[in-house]
Amino acid sequence: MKLSIYTMGGTIDKIYFDDLSTYEVGEPQAGEILKEAKAAVEFTLREVTRKDSLHLTAEDRALLRSLIEADPARHVLVTHGTDTMAETAEALRGIPGKVIVFTGALSPARFKGSDAPFNVGCAVGAAQGLTEGVYLCMNGLVFQAGKVRKNREAGRFEAQG
Amino acid sequence: MKLSIYTMGGTIDKIYFDDLSTYEVGEPQAGEILKEAKAAVEFTLREVTRKDSLHLTAEDRALLRSLIEADPARHVLVTHGTDTMAETAEALRGIPGKVIVFTGALSPARFKGSDAPFNVGCAVGAAQGLTEGVYLCMNGLVFQAGKVRKNREAGRFEAQG
Amino acid sequence: MKLSIYTMGGTIDKIYFDDLSTYEVGEPQAGEILKEAKAAVEFTLREVTRKDSLHLTAEDRALLRSLIEADPARHVLVTHGTDTMAETAEALRGIPGKVIVFTGALSPARFKGSDAPFNVGCAVGAAQGLTEGVYLCMNGLVFQAGKVRKNREAGRFEAQG
Amino acid sequence: MKLSIYTMGGTIDKIYFDDLSTYEVGEPQAGEILKEAKAAVEFTLREVTRKDSLHLTAEDRALLRSLIEADPARHVLVTHGTDTMAETAEALRGIPGKVIVFTGALSPARFKGSDAPFNVGCAVGAAQGLTEGVYLCMNGLVFQAGKVRKNREAGRFEAQG
Repeated sequence: MKLSIYTMGGTIDKIYFDDLSTYEVGEPQAGEILKEAKAAVEFTLREVTRKDSLHLTAEDRALLRSLIEADPARHVLVTHGTDTMAETAEALRGIPGKVIVFTGALSPARFKGSDAPFNVGCAVGAAQGLTEGVYLCMNGLVFQAGKVRKNREAGRFEAQG
Repeated sequence: MKLSIYTMGGTIDKIYFDDLSTYEVGEPQAGEILKEAKAAVEFTLREVTRKDSLHLTAEDRALLRSLIEADPARHVLVTHGTDTMAETAEALRGIPGKVIVFTGALSPARFKGSDAPFNVGCAVGAAQGLTEGVYLCMNGLVFQAGKVRKNREAGRFEAQG
Repeated sequence: MKLSIYTMGGTIDKIYFDDLSTYEVGEPQAGEILKEAKAAVEFTLREVTRKDSLHLTAEDRALLRSLIEADPARHVLVTHGTDTMAETAEALRGIPGKVIVFTGALSPARFKGSDAPFNVGCAVGAAQGLTEGVYLCMNGLVFQAGKVRKNREAGRFEAQG
Repeated sequence: MKLSIYTMGGTIDKIYFDDLSTYEVGEPQAGEILKEAKAAVEFTLREVTRKDSLHLTAEDRALLRSLIEADPARHVLVTHGTDTMAETAEALRGIPGKVIVFTGALSPARFKGSDAPFNVGCAVGAAQGLTEGVYLCMNGLVFQAGKVRKNREAGRFEAQG
């Protein structure tokens, strides 16, 4: 499997600046996670945006779609903020010949006990078994795009529709 | 997805005892990993053996097979030492109606930067996309039972056969 | 040594809320750090404030001083945000019969690779060797209150005066 | 403070080899711990032995003593296995003009939740407050050489004598 990774930002990539007393979205963590996990997956990684997903625009989503459409790889991983992950996944439906899996994290990858390594693992594993389509992997579950929402109160993703 | 987890021991579960200056296989870590990753997967966990996989016997493998055969769950995760994981996976072939995924770790789950959370995530994600059969998830790759070996020198799993 | 710990908040105690995409000062971490480090130090812990140290007031500092003055313990540890740690330390000078050591962290204790466990260790170790007075332990160095400042640009504490 | 660090090996430096299913003493971790903690302490580090402390010989201890005697630094940190740390500390008594502090760990520095960063912090902090002599910092407590033992059953150090 050759994997194309696109990163949009979000909690998974958040870092903390003591001098500003604030978090910001930092460099993409997916590559570090694969390296730390000794993954032998051949991959390329392209940072598309570095944004909290609430700030993503229609243009950002169109850019992501056009990049993936132009990419010869069958397997695509997108790391993304959790708030609008379901929306961006829907915006990628209908690209033929692709298994596209979204993931992200509820806790920054740089935190102890973050869900990020598990989630990226889950997405990479799912991609190898799934048929064409757009999917989300969060909370250990694989959802189809269009049939999932983030339950903000409960802090987890769940099936809908 | 309802997931049945069976644990055999191995590096993933290894702990260190300072008073003995030695390690031993400890309690199964798969449940802790799922909990830490905020996984919403419904699962049961049964510890079958607590062994370095070089010490597993034909009886241990027969016991694992009989437990899985008697288990109504379609999705099965087995955590296992890496040295004979491929062998045990082969011993489970031919059970109808099951997606059985093996994983483990090259570094104990209790180590910083262990591959265990990623690997368990990978196995859980793969299980949801794969068709019936027996598989191994290691190094971010999904292998079919009978077509994989551990390359001890390189410290990773690779396709064979 | 009986150690009285007072916590004021600050980066050391910061947590992240994915549903708010923001951090806040959370529960005091000093006790958890001592527990995780298998410290056999007898201690009490009292949370005085849960604030970013830029928001501490003269009243907060007066309250901290009065609590320590009324405390029979000789050894006192204060965890505190880094921005005004030096200022609060100065405000505690002149309490007789006390070894008061301030510490905190440049990276939240819940982050991988946080300086928090080292810093709390440093403060606890220093407290056992120092004579009466008020001190800061940051960046592995012990400073006297009134002779230290935070260099925000460099992200570290340094001697001054 | 200029700090001279000597490393003897022990649990603090243990690593795990999956291909051997064993732990061994690896590279000294004290320097990494100081770096990760953003310590601004000026230090040199010399690896003297890389041994489980049960295997240290009288020659190893004589070598350590001669190195420290020849070292102009006033502040010395020794990282050491826990089983015979108290014995080696005693073997260093009587070197004039030195504050020598031993530490180590009950859990390898590479483990999550290891006591190593806290312990090294404790030793570095203590060194700056203590007067001449040889000390042990373990479990958050500072002991004088000759007045401490490891309680193997309880897995901690305690005063004696």
